[in-house]
Amino acid sequence: MSLRAWSKLFRETGAIVCLYSNGLLPKCEVEMVAAEDRKSFDTVDHVAVSVTDVKGTVDWYLKNFSCKVAYQDETWALLEFANIRVAFVLPQQHPPHFALLRDPGLYGEPKTHRDGTRSVYLSDPSGNSVEVLALK
Amino acid sequence: MSLRAWSKLFRETGAIVCLYSNGLLPKCEVEMVAAEDRKSFDTVDHVAVSVTDVKGTVDWYLKNFSCKVAYQDETWALLEFANIRVAFVLPQQHPPHFALLRDPGLYGEPKTHRDGTRSVYLSDPSGNSVEVLALK
Repeated sequence: MSLRAWSKLFRETGAIVCLYSNGLLPKCEVEMVAAEDRKSFDTVDHVAVSVTDVKGTVDWYLKNFSCKVAYQDETWALLEFANIRVAFVLPQQHPPHFALLRDPGLYGEPKTHRDGTRSVYLSDPSGNSVEVLALK
Repeated sequence: MSLRAWSKLFRETGAIVCLYSNGLLPKCEVEMVAAEDRKSFDTVDHVAVSVTDVKGTVDWYLKNFSCKVAYQDETWALLEFANIRVAFVLPQQHPPHFALLRDPGLYGEPKTHRDGTRSVYLSDPSGNSVEVLALK
Protein backbone atom coordinates (compact mmCIF):
# COMPACT_ATOMS: atom_id res chain seq x y z
CA MET A 1 0.00 0.00 0.00
CA SER A 2 1.49 3.37 -0.97
CA LEU A 3 2.16 6.14 1.51
CA ARG A 4 -0.42 8.21 -0.30
CA ALA A 5 -3.06 5.50 -0.03
CA TRP A 6 -2.27 5.08 3.68
CA SER A 7 -2.57 8.81 4.15
CA LYS A 8 -5.95 8.89 2.40
CA LEU A 9 -7.22 5.91 4.39
CA PHE A 10 -6.18 7.31 7.74
CA ARG A 11 -7.45 10.79 7.01
CA GLU A 12 -10.83 9.38 5.97
CA THR A 13 -11.03 7.50 9.23
CA GLY A 14 -10.26 10.55 11.35
CA ALA A 15 -6.57 9.93 11.84
CA ILE A 16 -3.69 12.32 11.84
CA VAL A 17 -0.99 11.12 9.56
CA CYS A 18 2.52 12.45 9.59
CA LEU A 19 4.47 10.71 6.91
CA TYR A 20 7.83 11.93 5.80
CA SER A 21 10.94 10.72 4.18
CA ASN A 22 14.24 10.89 6.05
CA GLY A 23 16.97 10.49 3.47
CA LEU A 24 16.34 7.44 1.32
CA LEU A 25 14.23 5.50 3.77
CA PRO A 26 10.67 6.58 4.40
CA LYS A 27 9.94 7.15 8.07
CA CYS A 28 6.37 6.80 9.24
CA GLU A 29 4.70 8.42 12.22
CA VAL A 30 1.01 7.69 12.49
CA GLU A 31 -1.15 8.96 15.28
CA MET A 32 -4.79 7.91 15.40
CA VAL A 33 -7.17 10.42 16.93
CA ALA A 34 -10.74 9.14 16.79
CA ALA A 35 -13.49 11.67 16.11
CA GLU A 36 -15.12 10.68 19.40
CA ASP A 37 -11.93 11.48 21.32
CA ARG A 38 -11.59 14.85 19.64
CA LYS A 39 -14.98 15.91 21.01
CA SER A 40 -13.55 15.77 24.51
CA PHE A 41 -10.70 18.12 23.62
CA ASP A 42 -10.84 21.87 24.17
CA THR A 43 -12.23 24.06 21.39
CA VAL A 44 -10.30 26.94 19.88
CA ASP A 45 -12.84 29.77 19.64
CA HIS A 46 -10.77 32.14 17.55
CA VAL A 47 -7.31 32.95 16.34
CA ALA A 48 -6.15 36.58 16.18
CA VAL A 49 -3.57 37.37 13.51
CA SER A 50 -1.61 40.63 13.19
CA VAL A 51 -2.29 42.74 10.11
CA THR A 52 -1.08 46.11 8.87
CA ASP A 53 -4.26 46.94 6.92
CA VAL A 54 -7.57 45.65 8.30
CA LYS A 55 -9.77 46.56 5.31
CA GLY A 56 -7.30 45.42 2.65
CA THR A 57 -6.76 42.13 4.42
CA VAL A 58 -10.48 41.45 4.93
CA ASP A 59 -11.21 42.27 1.27
CA TRP A 60 -8.48 39.85 0.17
CA TYR A 61 -9.90 36.97 2.23
CA LEU A 62 -13.44 37.65 1.02
CA LYS A 63 -12.24 37.67 -2.58
CA ASN A 64 -10.18 34.49 -2.27
CA PHE A 65 -12.07 32.32 0.21
CA SER A 66 -15.55 31.43 1.39
CA CYS A 67 -16.09 33.19 4.71
CA LYS A 68 -18.13 36.01 6.19
CA VAL A 69 -17.43 39.23 8.08
CA ALA A 70 -18.90 39.04 11.57
CA TYR A 71 -17.43 42.36 12.69
CA GLN A 72 -15.21 45.04 11.23
CA ASP A 73 -13.90 48.44 12.21
CA GLU A 74 -10.62 50.24 11.51
CA THR A 75 -8.69 48.49 14.27
CA TRP A 76 -9.81 44.87 13.88
CA ALA A 77 -12.14 42.51 12.08
CA LEU A 78 -13.60 39.09 12.74
CA LEU A 79 -14.11 36.58 9.93
CA GLU A 80 -16.23 33.46 10.34
CA PHE A 81 -14.98 30.24 8.77
CA ALA A 82 -16.66 26.81 8.95
CA ASN A 83 -14.95 25.65 12.13
CA ILE A 84 -13.38 28.74 13.68
CA ARG A 85 -13.30 32.53 13.70
CA VAL A 86 -10.21 34.43 12.63
CA ALA A 87 -9.62 37.96 13.94
CA PHE A 88 -7.37 40.36 12.07
CA VAL A 89 -5.91 42.85 14.49
CA LEU A 90 -3.63 45.86 14.43
CA PRO A 91 -1.02 44.69 16.95
CA GLN A 92 -0.91 48.05 18.74
CA GLN A 93 -4.68 47.75 19.41
CA HIS A 94 -5.08 44.05 20.19
CA PRO A 95 -2.34 41.48 20.79
CA PRO A 96 -2.16 38.46 18.47
CA HIS A 97 -3.43 35.42 20.37
CA PHE A 98 -5.66 32.40 20.22
CA ALA A 99 -8.57 31.70 22.48
CA LEU A 100 -9.57 28.40 24.08
CA LEU A 101 -13.03 27.78 25.50
CA ARG A 102 -12.58 26.89 29.18
CA ASP A 103 -13.56 28.29 32.56
CA PRO A 104 -11.12 31.20 32.93
CA GLY A 105 -11.62 31.18 36.69
CA LEU A 106 -9.49 28.04 36.82
CA TYR A 107 -6.53 30.00 35.46
CA GLY A 108 -6.68 33.34 37.26
CA GLU A 109 -8.94 36.29 37.98
CA PRO A 110 -11.23 36.65 34.94
CA LYS A 111 -11.98 39.98 33.38
CA THR A 112 -15.65 40.38 32.44
CA HIS A 113 -16.09 42.05 29.07
CA ARG A 114 -18.98 44.27 28.02
CA ASP A 115 -20.67 41.47 26.10
CA GLY A 116 -20.76 39.27 29.19
CA THR A 117 -17.90 37.01 28.16
CA ARG A 118 -15.13 36.40 30.69
CA SER A 119 -11.49 35.68 30.03
CA VAL A 120 -7.97 35.42 31.37
CA TYR A 121 -4.85 35.93 29.25
CA LEU A 122 -1.95 33.54 29.76
CA SER A 123 1.49 33.41 28.18
CA ASP A 124 2.78 30.07 26.97
CA PRO A 125 6.49 29.27 27.48
CA SER A 126 7.28 30.75 24.05
CA GLY A 127 5.54 34.04 24.90
CA ASN A 128 2.40 33.47 22.81
CA SER A 129 -0.77 34.95 24.29
CA VAL A 130 -3.48 32.41 25.06
CA GLU A 131 -6.93 33.66 26.02
CA VAL A 132 -8.98 31.31 28.18
CA LEU A 133 -12.52 32.33 27.31
CA ALA A 134 -16.02 31.65 28.66
CA LEU A 135 -18.67 32.86 26.23
CA LYS A 136 -21.37 33.20 28.90
CA MET B 1 -33.33 42.35 27.89
CA SER B 2 -29.75 42.82 29.07
CA LEU B 3 -26.76 42.88 26.76
CA ARG B 4 -25.53 39.76 28.48
CA ALA B 5 -28.83 37.95 27.91
CA TRP B 6 -28.81 39.02 24.26
CA SER B 7 -25.28 37.77 23.92
CA LYS B 8 -26.21 34.41 25.44
CA LEU B 9 -29.29 34.09 23.26
CA PHE B 10 -27.47 34.89 20.06
CA ARG B 11 -24.52 32.69 20.81
CA GLU B 12 -26.82 29.78 21.58
CA THR B 13 -28.55 30.28 18.24
CA GLY B 14 -25.28 30.33 16.32
CA ALA B 15 -24.88 34.06 16.03
CA ILE B 16 -21.82 36.18 16.33
CA VAL B 17 -22.32 39.01 18.75
CA CYS B 18 -20.09 42.03 18.93
CA LEU B 19 -21.33 44.24 21.70
CA TYR B 20 -19.27 47.10 22.98
CA SER B 21 -19.66 50.35 24.75
CA ASN B 22 -18.57 53.56 23.08
CA GLY B 23 -18.28 56.17 25.82
CA LEU B 24 -21.39 56.22 27.97
CA LEU B 25 -23.83 54.82 25.44
CA PRO B 26 -23.70 51.16 24.58
CA LYS B 27 -23.27 50.54 20.87
CA CYS B 28 -24.49 47.27 19.46
CA GLU B 29 -23.23 45.39 16.43
CA VAL B 30 -24.90 42.06 15.90
CA GLU B 31 -24.15 39.80 13.00
CA MET B 32 -26.16 36.61 12.64
CA VAL B 33 -24.34 33.70 11.08
CA ALA B 34 -26.56 30.61 10.95
CA ALA B 35 -24.95 27.24 11.58
CA GLU B 36 -26.17 26.10 8.17
CA ASP B 37 -24.39 29.00 6.48
CA ARG B 38 -21.17 28.28 8.31
CA LYS B 39 -21.04 24.78 6.82
CA SER B 40 -20.59 26.35 3.39
CA PHE B 41 -17.57 28.36 4.54
CA ASP B 42 -13.99 27.18 4.13
CA THR B 43 -12.44 25.13 6.92
CA VAL B 44 -9.22 26.10 8.66
CA ASP B 45 -7.24 22.85 8.87
CA HIS B 46 -4.49 24.08 11.16
CA VAL B 47 -2.79 27.13 12.57
CA ALA B 48 1.00 27.19 12.93
CA VAL B 49 2.35 29.34 15.77
CA SER B 50 6.00 30.28 16.32
CA VAL B 51 7.68 28.91 19.41
CA THR B 52 11.16 29.06 20.86
CA ASP B 53 10.96 25.71 22.67
CA VAL B 54 8.86 22.96 21.08
CA LYS B 55 8.96 20.48 23.98
CA GLY B 56 8.43 23.05 26.73
CA THR B 57 5.50 24.57 24.85
CA VAL B 58 3.85 21.22 24.12
CA ASP B 59 4.23 20.14 27.76
CA TRP B 60 2.62 23.41 28.91
CA TYR B 61 -0.43 22.95 26.67
CA LEU B 62 -0.84 19.32 27.72
CA LYS B 63 -0.66 20.32 31.38
CA ASN B 64 -3.12 23.20 31.05
CA PHE B 65 -5.60 22.10 28.39
CA SER B 66 -7.36 19.07 26.99
CA CYS B 67 -5.66 18.18 23.72
CA LYS B 68 -3.46 15.48 22.25
CA VAL B 69 -0.08 15.32 20.55
CA ALA B 70 -0.49 14.10 16.98
CA TYR B 71 3.15 14.61 16.05
CA GLN B 72 6.29 15.92 17.74
CA ASP B 73 9.96 16.24 16.96
CA GLU B 74 12.58 18.84 17.90
CA THR B 75 11.59 21.30 15.17
CA TRP B 76 7.79 21.24 15.35
CA ALA B 77 4.77 19.61 16.95
CA LEU B 78 1.12 19.20 16.08
CA LEU B 79 -1.58 19.32 18.75
CA GLU B 80 -5.13 18.20 18.11
CA PHE B 81 -7.96 20.25 19.63
CA ALA B 82 -11.71 19.62 19.20
CA ASN B 83 -12.16 21.70 16.08
CA ILE B 84 -8.69 22.41 14.75
CA ARG B 85 -5.03 21.39 14.87
CA VAL B 86 -2.39 23.77 16.17
CA ALA B 87 1.22 23.40 15.05
CA PHE B 88 4.06 24.80 17.14
CA VAL B 89 6.99 25.57 14.87
CA LEU B 90 10.51 26.91 15.17
CA PRO B 91 10.26 29.85 12.76
CA GLN B 92 13.60 29.06 11.10
CA GLN B 93 12.29 25.56 10.25
CA HIS B 94 8.67 26.25 9.28
CA PRO B 95 7.01 29.62 8.73
CA PRO B 96 4.04 30.56 10.94
CA HIS B 97 0.87 30.29 8.84
CA PHE B 98 -2.65 29.02 8.78
CA ALA B 99 -4.03 26.49 6.33
CA LEU B 100 -7.38 26.54 4.56
CA LEU B 101 -8.87 23.46 2.93
CA ARG B 102 -9.40 24.29 -0.74
CA ASP B 103 -8.17 23.07 -4.12
CA PRO B 104 -4.67 24.61 -4.25
CA GLY B 105 -4.63 24.27 -8.03
CA LEU B 106 -7.04 27.21 -8.17
CA TYR B 107 -4.38 29.42 -6.57
CA GLY B 108 -1.13 28.41 -8.28
CA GLU B 109 1.09 25.41 -8.97
CA PRO B 110 0.63 23.03 -6.04
CA LYS B 111 3.54 21.28 -4.38
CA THR B 112 2.84 17.64 -3.60
CA HIS B 113 4.14 16.63 -0.19
CA ARG B 114 5.39 13.20 0.82
CA ASP B 115 2.13 12.31 2.55
CA GLY B 116 0.17 12.93 -0.65
CA THR B 117 -1.26 16.28 0.42
CA ARG B 118 -0.93 19.19 -2.01
CA SER B 119 -0.65 22.87 -1.19
CA VAL B 120 0.17 26.37 -2.36
CA TYR B 121 1.43 29.12 -0.05
CA LEU B 122 -0.02 32.61 -0.52
CA SER B 123 0.73 35.88 1.23
CA ASP B 124 -2.16 38.02 2.38
CA PRO B 125 -1.86 41.82 2.03
CA SER B 126 -0.39 42.01 5.54
CA GLY B 127 2.31 39.46 4.75
CA ASN B 128 0.77 36.53 6.64
CA SER B 129 1.38 33.13 5.06
CA VAL B 130 -1.78 31.28 4.06
CA GLU B 131 -1.50 27.66 2.97
CA VAL B 132 -4.22 26.45 0.61
CA LEU B 133 -4.28 22.72 1.31
CA ALA B 134 -5.86 19.62 -0.21
CA LEU B 135 -5.55 16.65 2.12
CA LYS B 136 -5.81 14.06 -0.65
